[in-house]
Amino acid sequence: MRVRYRGEIIDAPSVSRSGLSAIILDQRSIPSVVEFRTATDLPDMADCIRTLSVRGAPAIGAFGAISLAICLAKGIPSATAYGALLSTRPTAVDLKNCMDRVMRAYDRGGSDAALKESDDICSSIVDSCREIGRIGASLFKKGERILTHCNAGALATIDWGTALAPIRSLARSGMDPLVYVSETRPLLQGSRLTAWELSMEGIRHKVLVDSACAHLFREGLVDSVIVGADRVCRNGDIANKIGTLDKAILAKRFGVPFYVAFPWSTFDPECVRGEDVPIELRDGTEFAQYLIPSTAGDSEYWNPAFDWTPSELITAFITERGVLDPSRIGDTPL
Amino acid sequence: MRVRYRGEIIDAPSVSRSGLSAIILDQRSIPSVVEFRTATDLPDMADCIRTLSVRGAPAIGAFGAISLAICLAKGIPSATAYGALLSTRPTAVDLKNCMDRVMRAYDRGGSDAALKESDDICSSIVDSCREIGRIGASLFKKGERILTHCNAGALATIDWGTALAPIRSLARSGMDPLVYVSETRPLLQGSRLTAWELSMEGIRHKVLVDSACAHLFREGLVDSVIVGADRVCRNGDIANKIGTLDKAILAKRFGVPFYVAFPWSTFDPECVRGEDVPIELRDGTEFAQYLIPSTAGDSEYWNPAFDWTPSELITAFITERGVLDPSRIGDTPL
Repeated sequence: MRVRYRGEIIDAPSVSRSGLSAIILDQRSIPSVVEFRTATDLPDMADCIRTLSVRGAPAIGAFGAISLAICLAKGIPSATAYGALLSTRPTAVDLKNCMDRVMRAYDRGGSDAALKESDDICSSIVDSCREIGRIGASLFKKGERILTHCNAGALATIDWGTALAPIRSLARSGMDPLVYVSETRPLLQGSRLTAWELSMEGIRHKVLVDSACAHLFREGLVDSVIVGADRVCRNGDIANKIGTLDKAILAKRFGVPFYVAFPWSTFDPECVRGEDVPIELRDGTEFAQYLIPSTAGDSEYWNPAFDWTPSELITAFITERGVLDPSRIGDTPL
Repeated sequence: MRVRYRGEIIDAPSVSRSGLSAIILDQRSIPSVVEFRTATDLPDMADCIRTLSVRGAPAIGAFGAISLAICLAKGIPSATAYGALLSTRPTAVDLKNCMDRVMRAYDRGGSDAALKESDDICSSIVDSCREIGRIGASLFKKGERILTHCNAGALATIDWGTALAPIRSLARSGMDPLVYVSETRPLLQGSRLTAWELSMEGIRHKVLVDSACAHLFREGLVDSVIVGADRVCRNGDIANKIGTLDKAILAKRFGVPFYVAFPWSTFDPECVRGEDVPIELRDGTEFAQYLIPSTAGDSEYWNPAFDWTPSELITAFITERGVLDPSRIGDTPL
């Protein structure tokens, strides 16, 4: 992905490994400050995930894999490292899936195999996202007006993105998409991160507040919706950033297709349906994180970080394995 | 309404007149700073409405009436004053309705009659809102969990509020409502203003981001929705704060009643249906107004201030004339 860093445009992954350090683009301060954060010990690695320095289901998976492999190479007991990293955030399943791959490699070939596996996981996520971009682009016409929510871009996936991968593909082949970016309160992953990624690529976009989406649909300004996912259930229900369900219901009502793009690491065949996904409930102090002091001091807050969207509202899944029928994902060979 | 002002709890209207000055609680800085703003000349009066120092359909109507009457008493030509005030904001109809009443009084009895009419308008809005509270409270049970959007409270209506009037009535009669307050980006009228009003009254409430509403409904946490209106059309469609349409569609899907509370000054029989309401499109700089610098600099914004909601999604209107069937409001005697 293109990043403006210390005055220069560079190409950088959002998650990478250098020796026994995990390196991430710190997503908390983007776009005001673009800095890399290096984590070398387990508490700091867990903190990176918990505080959202790294976020996005595939990026968390990659970062968890790298972190676990580094801990194993440093001789930290596997149960300690695995447990500390897994307990950071409950909703996205990529973290568990990717760490399980590292553990299997470790059991087979020790810490060198674990480190190599974590590198392979990173490469495969980038490859999957590039493929999602190629496959997904075929669903959209020239000048397509696409609504996306939160950030399912390169920041969330090392490179390319899930929802943003087809948009990048369209833009690079001259199809000139127009992207509506919903702001995504409370942490502004839309206006801070997605808008920034699109700006760096010179892709046309307009930011809107989350609650303007119904009006946007009714004004006939949107041709399709595309989002990422934090977990895909066996019956095709998906869990994703809070606010995804609203958009899916609205898209159905206004006859607009609703696509979900994800790499296979996001699929959880053991999770039967949406009700079974643990929905993370975060602290209300997040409401004020990007605000100047402006809210009443003694109010309570209700702050779920995710919601889940039933399979029946989803037009198609876009994965590196192709465009899939959500209701039949449970039948796909693993 | 109860206001904490310079360390003391006082009872103050949000809009009032003192001699030839219009006085408002400045809604831009609440709750960080609670200050009154005094406007004595026409440009400053128009600025109060345009910059949202005063907002909320009935409050704008009251302020417009007072401002127009003061201008007439000062010898400013009626067409000049009426035109400057009317052009400030297009969506709410109370501004025009209330100024028309002042003009008719002026034509009958000169500027003294106009000033008296503006005072009568303020009294009648407060009376209507108190009555809306009394009538609306009968629709809710003890412990009712009520979602509201934006601020349709005392700040928006001189006192009591429209949507908040039944909630105040419930609270004062020991019915202990729990209010879910959607934040209402970009200007945070929910978390800044409604949460503050509820805090001052000691009414239980939880603030949530706008896009968490679908998840809130599905979790079964809401018994009813109540909002205000900026304009009510002859067919029962209503225009209100951007984000109202989303909540109405979601309420219908999840089987939750959706109430709209307003005084009669908000009804516009000349506006046939929602498509006919001018929806104000505001500047994208508002997105950053309550944020620390955190958004990409070169993005475009789409910032409609209102949307409209079709009559078929509305369970009932709550007005000082009673609980009305939205589809039949056009048959009501004026």
